[in-house]
Amino acid sequence: MERDSMGEVAVPAHAYWGAQTQRSLIHFAIGDDPMPLEVVRALAVVKKAAALVNVETGRLTAEKGRLIAAAADEVVDGKLDPHFPLSVWQTGSGTQTNMNVNEVIANRAIELAGGVLGSRSPVHPNDDVNMSQSSNDVFPTAMHIAAALLIHGGLIPAVERLRDAIEAKGREFADVVKIGRTHLQDATPLTVGQEMSGWASLLERDITRLLQGLDGLWDLAIGGTAVGTGLAARPDFGQRAAERIASLTGLPFRSHPNKFAALSAHDELVFVHGTLTTLAGSLMKIANDIRLLASGPRCGIGELQIPENEPGSSIMPGKVNPTQCEAMTMVAAQVMGNGTAVAIAGSQGNLELNVFKPVIIHNVLRSAALLGDACRSFTDHLVVGMEVDRQRTAEHLRNSLMLVTPLSPRIGYDKAARIAHTAYAEGTTLREACLKLGYLSAAEFDALVRPEEMTRPDRTD
Amino acid sequence: MERDSMGEVAVPAHAYWGAQTQRSLIHFAIGDDPMPLEVVRALAVVKKAAALVNVETGRLTAEKGRLIAAAADEVVDGKLDPHFPLSVWQTGSGTQTNMNVNEVIANRAIELAGGVLGSRSPVHPNDDVNMSQSSNDVFPTAMHIAAALLIHGGLIPAVERLRDAIEAKGREFADVVKIGRTHLQDATPLTVGQEMSGWASLLERDITRLLQGLDGLWDLAIGGTAVGTGLAARPDFGQRAAERIASLTGLPFRSHPNKFAALSAHDELVFVHGTLTTLAGSLMKIANDIRLLASGPRCGIGELQIPENEPGSSIMPGKVNPTQCEAMTMVAAQVMGNGTAVAIAGSQGNLELNVFKPVIIHNVLRSAALLGDACRSFTDHLVVGMEVDRQRTAEHLRNSLMLVTPLSPRIGYDKAARIAHTAYAEGTTLREACLKLGYLSAAEFDALVRPEEMTRPDRTD
Amino acid sequence: MERDSMGEVAVPAHAYWGAQTQRSLIHFAIGDDPMPLEVVRALAVVKKAAALVNVETGRLTAEKGRLIAAAADEVVDGKLDPHFPLSVWQTGSGTQTNMNVNEVIANRAIELAGGVLGSRSPVHPNDDVNMSQSSNDVFPTAMHIAAALLIHGGLIPAVERLRDAIEAKGREFADVVKIGRTHLQDATPLTVGQEMSGWASLLERDITRLLQGLDGLWDLAIGGTAVGTGLAARPDFGQRAAERIASLTGLPFRSHPNKFAALSAHDELVFVHGTLTTLAGSLMKIANDIRLLASGPRCGIGELQIPENEPGSSIMPGKVNPTQCEAMTMVAAQVMGNGTAVAIAGSQGNLELNVFKPVIIHNVLRSAALLGDACRSFTDHLVVGMEVDRQRTAEHLRNSLMLVTPLSPRIGYDKAARIAHTAYAEGTTLREACLKLGYLSAAEFDALVRPEEMTRPDRTD
Amino acid sequence: MERDSMGEVAVPAHAYWGAQTQRSLIHFAIGDDPMPLEVVRALAVVKKAAALVNVETGRLTAEKGRLIAAAADEVVDGKLDPHFPLSVWQTGSGTQTNMNVNEVIANRAIELAGGVLGSRSPVHPNDDVNMSQSSNDVFPTAMHIAAALLIHGGLIPAVERLRDAIEAKGREFADVVKIGRTHLQDATPLTVGQEMSGWASLLERDITRLLQGLDGLWDLAIGGTAVGTGLAARPDFGQRAAERIASLTGLPFRSHPNKFAALSAHDELVFVHGTLTTLAGSLMKIANDIRLLASGPRCGIGELQIPENEPGSSIMPGKVNPTQCEAMTMVAAQVMGNGTAVAIAGSQGNLELNVFKPVIIHNVLRSAALLGDACRSFTDHLVVGMEVDRQRTAEHLRNSLMLVTPLSPRIGYDKAARIAHTAYAEGTTLREACLKLGYLSAAEFDALVRPEEMTRPDRTD
Repeated sequence: MERDSMGEVAVPAHAYWGAQTQRSLIHFAIGDDPMPLEVVRALAVVKKAAALVNVETGRLTAEKGRLIAAAADEVVDGKLDPHFPLSVWQTGSGTQTNMNVNEVIANRAIELAGGVLGSRSPVHPNDDVNMSQSSNDVFPTAMHIAAALLIHGGLIPAVERLRDAIEAKGREFADVVKIGRTHLQDATPLTVGQEMSGWASLLERDITRLLQGLDGLWDLAIGGTAVGTGLAARPDFGQRAAERIASLTGLPFRSHPNKFAALSAHDELVFVHGTLTTLAGSLMKIANDIRLLASGPRCGIGELQIPENEPGSSIMPGKVNPTQCEAMTMVAAQVMGNGTAVAIAGSQGNLELNVFKPVIIHNVLRSAALLGDACRSFTDHLVVGMEVDRQRTAEHLRNSLMLVTPLSPRIGYDKAARIAHTAYAEGTTLREACLKLGYLSAAEFDALVRPEEMTRPDRTD
Repeated sequence: MERDSMGEVAVPAHAYWGAQTQRSLIHFAIGDDPMPLEVVRALAVVKKAAALVNVETGRLTAEKGRLIAAAADEVVDGKLDPHFPLSVWQTGSGTQTNMNVNEVIANRAIELAGGVLGSRSPVHPNDDVNMSQSSNDVFPTAMHIAAALLIHGGLIPAVERLRDAIEAKGREFADVVKIGRTHLQDATPLTVGQEMSGWASLLERDITRLLQGLDGLWDLAIGGTAVGTGLAARPDFGQRAAERIASLTGLPFRSHPNKFAALSAHDELVFVHGTLTTLAGSLMKIANDIRLLASGPRCGIGELQIPENEPGSSIMPGKVNPTQCEAMTMVAAQVMGNGTAVAIAGSQGNLELNVFKPVIIHNVLRSAALLGDACRSFTDHLVVGMEVDRQRTAEHLRNSLMLVTPLSPRIGYDKAARIAHTAYAEGTTLREACLKLGYLSAAEFDALVRPEEMTRPDRTD
Repeated sequence: MERDSMGEVAVPAHAYWGAQTQRSLIHFAIGDDPMPLEVVRALAVVKKAAALVNVETGRLTAEKGRLIAAAADEVVDGKLDPHFPLSVWQTGSGTQTNMNVNEVIANRAIELAGGVLGSRSPVHPNDDVNMSQSSNDVFPTAMHIAAALLIHGGLIPAVERLRDAIEAKGREFADVVKIGRTHLQDATPLTVGQEMSGWASLLERDITRLLQGLDGLWDLAIGGTAVGTGLAARPDFGQRAAERIASLTGLPFRSHPNKFAALSAHDELVFVHGTLTTLAGSLMKIANDIRLLASGPRCGIGELQIPENEPGSSIMPGKVNPTQCEAMTMVAAQVMGNGTAVAIAGSQGNLELNVFKPVIIHNVLRSAALLGDACRSFTDHLVVGMEVDRQRTAEHLRNSLMLVTPLSPRIGYDKAARIAHTAYAEGTTLREACLKLGYLSAAEFDALVRPEEMTRPDRTD
Repeated sequence: MERDSMGEVAVPAHAYWGAQTQRSLIHFAIGDDPMPLEVVRALAVVKKAAALVNVETGRLTAEKGRLIAAAADEVVDGKLDPHFPLSVWQTGSGTQTNMNVNEVIANRAIELAGGVLGSRSPVHPNDDVNMSQSSNDVFPTAMHIAAALLIHGGLIPAVERLRDAIEAKGREFADVVKIGRTHLQDATPLTVGQEMSGWASLLERDITRLLQGLDGLWDLAIGGTAVGTGLAARPDFGQRAAERIASLTGLPFRSHPNKFAALSAHDELVFVHGTLTTLAGSLMKIANDIRLLASGPRCGIGELQIPENEPGSSIMPGKVNPTQCEAMTMVAAQVMGNGTAVAIAGSQGNLELNVFKPVIIHNVLRSAALLGDACRSFTDHLVVGMEVDRQRTAEHLRNSLMLVTPLSPRIGYDKAARIAHTAYAEGTTLREACLKLGYLSAAEFDALVRPEEMTRPDRTD
């Protein structure tokens, strides 16, 4: 039995959590989405930082501070993961998860001190672990920390690796000239390297945007306490705690300049999801391009060959389903949907508090994790194994009617157009049509129609 | 070691799954979203139905049919849940989950027959379990079955129960007259029963819409096989299999009239999510209304009292955070986001196949489950315990200036308006202002200003 | 100068509108979106119906009724369009547009009666034109009428015509066998007629859903007046007015069974937009399919030829940009976005009134109009002119390796697979590979490999 | 009659546009959304810059350059607005609008030179006006210019002005202490100035994000021509043209480092819309807060008084509908929907070209314009006229039970809680309850319970 201000409640014997966590379990049997452990661990970082500042400023005894820090470290290290059973779908301030963390850290600290679980002594979940804090400021603080850590340490490196892999492929096929396609219609040529450089550039710029998004996340709500005034904390608590969090995480966190804003809205996370949505769009475009180029083997474009990770057709060779592209584009659709949820939730704050906090951080973390995982999978199981079918690519280029353009300055527009129309009508190449019409010799044609020259700006000025 | 057409792959000894499932595990380490068990179980229903039809039409031996049906039943009963480890983020046709189900049913059937796991004998995952089928038709069939079962058996009853609980509350407080509010501004009165009848009506109509959505789900893709032509199945296979599925589930499933449509688009599920999004909107409105009415205890509207499920302020009584409303509105935001994901995914089919199947069904099931759970929680932990603060409600009504209207026919518009302006300027009630101005006696005022009369249409014509 | 309860305001001399409209013009200089004329005209229908009922029940003189009806008819006929200058971005109840309609009808009625504009005599905008009504019930009534008229009379016929045109094309090419494509990879064959039947089926089912959506729109808020109680109207006013509206429009409108719901939420329109979003997804899929099939002319799929409505490349023949597909898919993206706006707005009602009415109806009407126009344009400028390139389609079919399947029963799986691998490795057709390997004679091969047989279920059982 | 490569077409005599524009008018009768004039004017800037560079590099005669620049200036100045009649719903590359601009500038230049309209001499729409360009690079260039100009010159100043107006109001009421509200429940106090500083902070940070968004817009696609290779332009054309555009607009435009990316995706605009969506969320929160605080006059919160811009109730004073808040929140819902459309459209590029360009820029410009207009309207017609009802605010504060907290250190937690419970149960103030219970004298109570002290962090450490 554990107690809180409402009375007693039965808690499983093995659990470090207490009465308030248990009440939440009872009242919120909704869905299968546990509060992300990233949030729990970020809260533990906050608890440790707060304890250190409270010791430093003489509010908490050094011993209590040591115990809280030790228990918090265990949470950060994932040793107590099973003790955070609550759902995303709980109170909109995240209070119940904050209390869950307070209770687990207190009980584990008590245990470290040789005390009795549930006794609230020598470490009290509210008075000690939550000292100088309110759920209303620590939960949004943890939201920023969790999102920043995942994007900085997980997503950005994954996008960088994908960009690098694409760039490497681009270099590998830098010399392959291919037909361009606009409106899905044959257009003037470019090199495979150029096409892939476009993909890499999208990702490069996504990384810049992800970093822009991080900028707002460094600002932490801590110090605002219940409504933003900082009541019950020292005036310098937010500043000191943010500095501690920065040193604990190695990231440039700082105190948010306006705590009223920091509690009542989460625009930074809405904006960050905007960078995730943009990345999702880049990835959908790249994945779609790859599956278009790899379509076939006979009746599609077929210029790209992708690794066969799973059995395609048992009897028919060359049918390789672009499954990594499919996983990636599904992730992209999900991320765009998550973005809608975050935008709605972010707009719904009332007065001193936005109470859509869990759904916001749930979606931001989920999008960032899915994108990171999908980028890694896409890199390892698709991009590094991609090959250009040089023969088919060359054949497409040779067949294209767009190569007629360079003939115009030499033989005039009318004859050039006639060559193209003849080739189109008779289903031949331009070269065949040109020779048949007798406008140029084969050697002359070959000297003029040099697709690789068409992959560069006009240097003849 | 298990084999497939690509060669050998090591599979955990305890697992019923085979090579193709294992390959998917290796290549799709993306996110934490397992393919919903509802889909797996629906696939098992399809496998059983297919086996029964294949036996019936002489394609499969009765013994094999019996073994497949027995193993499929175990899947349906949840006995083999741990053997379906694949992610939502896999191939967009759901092929890997279809193969997972084929492999598990085959191996369990082999085990039931006393055979050797992985031997593909006497029951072969492709030749027998997947007979007359393709992933391309059975996966969308399972999508419809899973969604229909959850909405029909889980969500609709939950919405009905919430509607009933609200209606009961409305009857309980049918006689309480309260001030209406439009634009959040005081308006003419209505009864609490009327207000709550509006909420119940929204849910009633949501149920009608959910049923409309089910209508399209009864149509099953089964029989279309790989591209919709039904190649490798008998012409009557789809019809027969749909009938079997109907009898196995007790729901009116039938064969989709156009298999090309059924494989290449999932408009039925996009539409169904439209009904879920609409329901989410109704619920957000109701939950917002309740927390507005329960705002306070002193400095808000405070006409409604909601159950205190968790500790609010330890020192301050009456501060009851509307946590169930918060969970509900967060769920609503999520569902709206899921709807965006489904709409995008549904629009992205190419030629003979839409390859966003897993993300579509993942979101439809997730939305339906979240809404169902949230409705149940909201009913049990909020609605049944709501009370009207009759005193505060009456006080608001008494204070309202909107009650001046009925005076106008008697004392004229100008005097009535003067009463209202006096009350507004002096911060008094209309009654006090009227008496002070001496236009009417107290008895006359009371006889004319009868708010309950204002809650009904004008019956004096 | 016109007057209202706040005093005087200068109104342009030529304008029929009055003070309240003018105030709105001053205070809401936001964007370029006029309140849709469909809403204005629907309001005029409501005004006429209300006047007829008010005359019938003795509340309004026959002469006033006649004048109001005559002026309302002019609004419906579009004769007074320039007199409705207000923006969508006004008060969220649509009150200002309701007053605009009241003022214009009153002034025009006054003019018809030979009175002085602005004199409010013999027809008063509030007392007479708005009699028994409130903005809060007539505006949502007009929303339903406007949406139902546009969907019923504009959108559904456009979708039907597109469906018919696709079906006709499908019949025209019913005999053309083509390669199927799943995952954008070559798959087993089907006929062009079958493929197009899938598109037509999607649209057929969209029409069914649009009709399902209309069902909720028939229910009208009229009779609820300010908060849903019907205060200041007769008890039977809603019923009578709905019947009049039904007879004036020829559509089965009826009185909404719960006026509190009808004023405070617009779930019917959220749901209707769900049907529009679903239609948008179908159309995006169809347009994408067509541009894929028409990709080329040389380096894409090229099985479909689409009309050349604009100059493509001046020198290169056969490059026909799929511009109608592009307009259609852009419309689809817009409609999906509009759906998000409607879902959000629909969820945001508070207590007795949802004050997002104009944005909801703006988006529903815009989506319905765009979809209707796009369907008409797509039908006329694309579908009716589509041609199948039979030669290229046959070539793809002949080249495909998927046709190896029927050989397996005759020569065994191993030899069949060897033929496919030889063809794949050497870039030849299956037929060439088979003859080279000497497994079958040309005649035998041709007798076995009959793609048209693969477009049907297996009839050999 | 005008001619293009497809032949003749009849064009209205008064029109400067030519055959291609006319064909688009015929083939795209979809909706009522004209291509935004901001795009047309941005294209004219591009045409002028290109002409200047082409003259500079000797490709174009000085005379032609002068004529083109003069005609382009007229377009920029809005003198030729009626000559750009095309719809947003056209080809997805914006080619038809590019040709519209080419045709109008050419014809107007011809007219300036005394030539014959439609003669293509002395200025040819393609050869001269479009020299060194392709629709594929100039249209996205114009998209960036148009969006950047509107956000930089229109939206950001509007947000700044709103922020300033809110800050000024905050200073005006900096000393007013009020009750805080979290979960819509009474919480610890803060000042009106603090609350409003939170709103101003949200906007301040939105401005920072809008500026971050602009950063990507400075990069221009110009120089990429048809597929990104720059074919038919000089290698330095993009660089030179971007510099010219920068000097013509006074904004730091520069050449995009990767033209393949710049043509085939529009992630910069997706990201920019993320900043608009975030701003929309901030504004929805602020507008919702204001209407909550202004709810009443008697039966809501009523702490804020907002200007009465339109008649509320004619008979009832003090009922002021928050119409500006309603317009603002409707705009916010629309912007969120537009964001969905942009995200979808941005993800749908294929290979060398994204053909959702018009729908993307349409939505970005529409969102930016709506938000700018709504901010201006909100500032002028709401914020500058807001007043705090000091009496009601003080009354709420006095009534609040949350003020009990400061008593706890002095009289102990138990007595403090007893005071609160007594006050709650008996419906009195804390002060009355305290005096009744006899724990403190009135003077002692007043000395301890000083709400203004609770609006600051604890300075007693």
